[in-house]
Amino acid sequence: MRPPLNRLPAAQLARMLAARDVSCEAVTHSFLDAIEQRESEVRAFAWIDPARSLGIARELDRGSARGPLHGLPVAVKDVIDTAGIATEYGSPIYAGHVPRADAACVAALRAAGSYVLGKTVTAELANFAPGPTRNPYALEHTPGGSSSGSAAAVAARMAPFALGTQTAGSVIRPASFCGVVGFVPTRGSIPRAGAKQVSDTLDVIGCFAGTVEDVALLASTLMMRPDLVDARASPRAPSVGWTMTPWASQLAPAMRHALDQVVRMCASKGAQAREVRWSDKFTALAAAQRVVQMFETARSFAAEFDYRRHQLSPQLAGLIDEGRAIDAASYLAALQTGRACAATIDELFGGADVILAPSAPGAAPHGLGSTGDPQFNRPWQLLGGPQVNVPVTRAMQGKSELPLGVQVVGRPGDDARTLAFAHWLEQQLGRA
Amino acid sequence: MRPPLNRLPAAQLARMLAARDVSCEAVTHSFLDAIEQRESEVRAFAWIDPARSLGIARELDRGSARGPLHGLPVAVKDVIDTAGIATEYGSPIYAGHVPRADAACVAALRAAGSYVLGKTVTAELANFAPGPTRNPYALEHTPGGSSSGSAAAVAARMAPFALGTQTAGSVIRPASFCGVVGFVPTRGSIPRAGAKQVSDTLDVIGCFAGTVEDVALLASTLMMRPDLVDARASPRAPSVGWTMTPWASQLAPAMRHALDQVVRMCASKGAQAREVRWSDKFTALAAAQRVVQMFETARSFAAEFDYRRHQLSPQLAGLIDEGRAIDAASYLAALQTGRACAATIDELFGGADVILAPSAPGAAPHGLGSTGDPQFNRPWQLLGGPQVNVPVTRAMQGKSELPLGVQVVGRPGDDARTLAFAHWLEQQLGRA
Repeated sequence: MRPPLNRLPAAQLARMLAARDVSCEAVTHSFLDAIEQRESEVRAFAWIDPARSLGIARELDRGSARGPLHGLPVAVKDVIDTAGIATEYGSPIYAGHVPRADAACVAALRAAGSYVLGKTVTAELANFAPGPTRNPYALEHTPGGSSSGSAAAVAARMAPFALGTQTAGSVIRPASFCGVVGFVPTRGSIPRAGAKQVSDTLDVIGCFAGTVEDVALLASTLMMRPDLVDARASPRAPSVGWTMTPWASQLAPAMRHALDQVVRMCASKGAQAREVRWSDKFTALAAAQRVVQMFETARSFAAEFDYRRHQLSPQLAGLIDEGRAIDAASYLAALQTGRACAATIDELFGGADVILAPSAPGAAPHGLGSTGDPQFNRPWQLLGGPQVNVPVTRAMQGKSELPLGVQVVGRPGDDARTLAFAHWLEQQLGRA
Repeated sequence: MRPPLNRLPAAQLARMLAARDVSCEAVTHSFLDAIEQRESEVRAFAWIDPARSLGIARELDRGSARGPLHGLPVAVKDVIDTAGIATEYGSPIYAGHVPRADAACVAALRAAGSYVLGKTVTAELANFAPGPTRNPYALEHTPGGSSSGSAAAVAARMAPFALGTQTAGSVIRPASFCGVVGFVPTRGSIPRAGAKQVSDTLDVIGCFAGTVEDVALLASTLMMRPDLVDARASPRAPSVGWTMTPWASQLAPAMRHALDQVVRMCASKGAQAREVRWSDKFTALAAAQRVVQMFETARSFAAEFDYRRHQLSPQLAGLIDEGRAIDAASYLAALQTGRACAATIDELFGGADVILAPSAPGAAPHGLGSTGDPQFNRPWQLLGGPQVNVPVTRAMQGKSELPLGVQVVGRPGDDARTLAFAHWLEQQLGRA
């Protein structure tokens, strides 16, 4: 017996849809069934309209194939504009807000034959105050954030893939917590027009899917890089740097163990693995990322803070206060730290193709009051290169077994090679 | 007899308003009078509401001073969101569109005591198809674009200053054509949240005003850099590079003469002046800027192009077609050209503090069908440093006498020194 359609990899569904082996309507039904079963407890969606989705699916069935995503729906983080569909940015300030136009990334997906299945819950204004979403693996645990609903929707098979945004760790961390693949491409490579801005320097649009091949399929459309679809080709004898980072003391033992096991496995499969050495310059990336994020967030949210402060969470209002107190010289120095590290990135990478690092301090913490700590995401985000969370194992966290992921980090512009290595790693882990 | 208030420099008005020597209402009346006299022929505004402006001015008169721009209105290019005020991006696609929130830059100005006097005409989606605005110096000539209305409004003294945006030359060129000061700060230093995106890499929010001191006052608020207000302090014995650029053959004789005279004058006033040498690497900046702009514009306008192509000008639709045909490798190479030049910028600048270059090929061309050629803006925009247009002289263009400006270009981050030199130059020219 074939598994339900929503359990199949998106790339496989795409091939079946292209061959008309399955209808768009049947695919949509399958995801709507999952939503029917899981959404009331997971709460991944901020907006959904099953009848509308089925109508679009039937229309797609009647027409010719539009592109590589024909008939594959997408869940879209609610900080990304969708024409005619409420987009509330996770803030009461924007209750009922309906954008005039689709964000550029949404339009690109539609042009490729995809459509918006639902809008997903985001932490307030893509920052830290959580929405109602729960971790599908253990409902009393956070799904991570700020792309909470996107990660949870893919994890619960309620969508084949989803869009998120990352300013610090808002894609990689929830992907790790929810046991899905998360991909943040090189900064600037997915157009941001129509995405609510948090930090102009740092914001990147990212993707969630069940496998590396699936995430590459989505990303290749978003980045207009057809070559990325072939990123599943295995590299020969990859060269890997690995690091617990200078903040290793903050790692849960299970995460240290997981990364250690991955590195051993890579070596046993013929990869060259060497530990990364952090000079002071690169260690400074984490603090510099935080300065850039705080300074720019405080300015991006000028209108919200100046006119509607009472509708902001005290947490976000406090961060904006803190960001406004940062002087321009500190901000410019933090930007310079990022530029200097990116310009000398080989000092960190050595001869390695990619670096393996923890995606988060550990598994998803208990409780829904916090989306977790982005410390292990900050340095990579300021560097600006591609990042992929690959689910590795599960570990007991309190009374629940929860996913753990490691991230594959590449040099800026090296998206194809980074995805190829992530795919190789996924295969070695026996997941593909 | 004192000149009308709208003829005074904005910085002087700010001091008078702070001292309560003049009321906000009187200042507003003065600019509204100018609008009454000139707007029907200049057509700088896409939206204006005199009664609303007077109401805000009276409210400001009743309250305590809010900040350095207390009571000084601003004209805002209609690609920048204003809460509750129509923002149509110069496109019929957005007819009647009213944003939910102010752009971050507008909120910053309001917090400093300014308010929106009007929205100004932009070329279609901040690209090339012109709006109805005419050059205040000669109505049959273009004001330049895409920030057409902002440059013209300041030139006609209908606003003390204005906001624009620049992706290639949309601030510096219209400032030169209209005889006002235009300032484009270092890329990223004014938050872009709430501005319609054209090119994520290249878009910068810029300012127009009557003098360098005025533009620095506005920019210091937008950039949250109070130190820029002191940029009027004269540098001692400035060191200046000058260049007709590798495209000198495209310059009008009047522009060559104007720049030549400025360089001679600088030398006679004690500046060290040396001609800039362009290696092939830096010459490639202009073509690379165009590739980056085309590629990113084609993606930013995905929604407009995919769903509403019939409402785009044939000119813009053609550019998007062209941009979509650019392959990713060419785009990435163009970005790399920009990064490589920025990283080795001293090879171009040598020991110079700033570079003097033409702001445009010549004075504003006759006719309203084109906003002019950005060739002389492209290389600097990809470099990403500050640029200031300083009005230098007027020259006969056909039957009309029209302004000519030269631009002062600085290294990225060197905004204060660039403004200081521009102020020194303005003083030497006897304009301040």
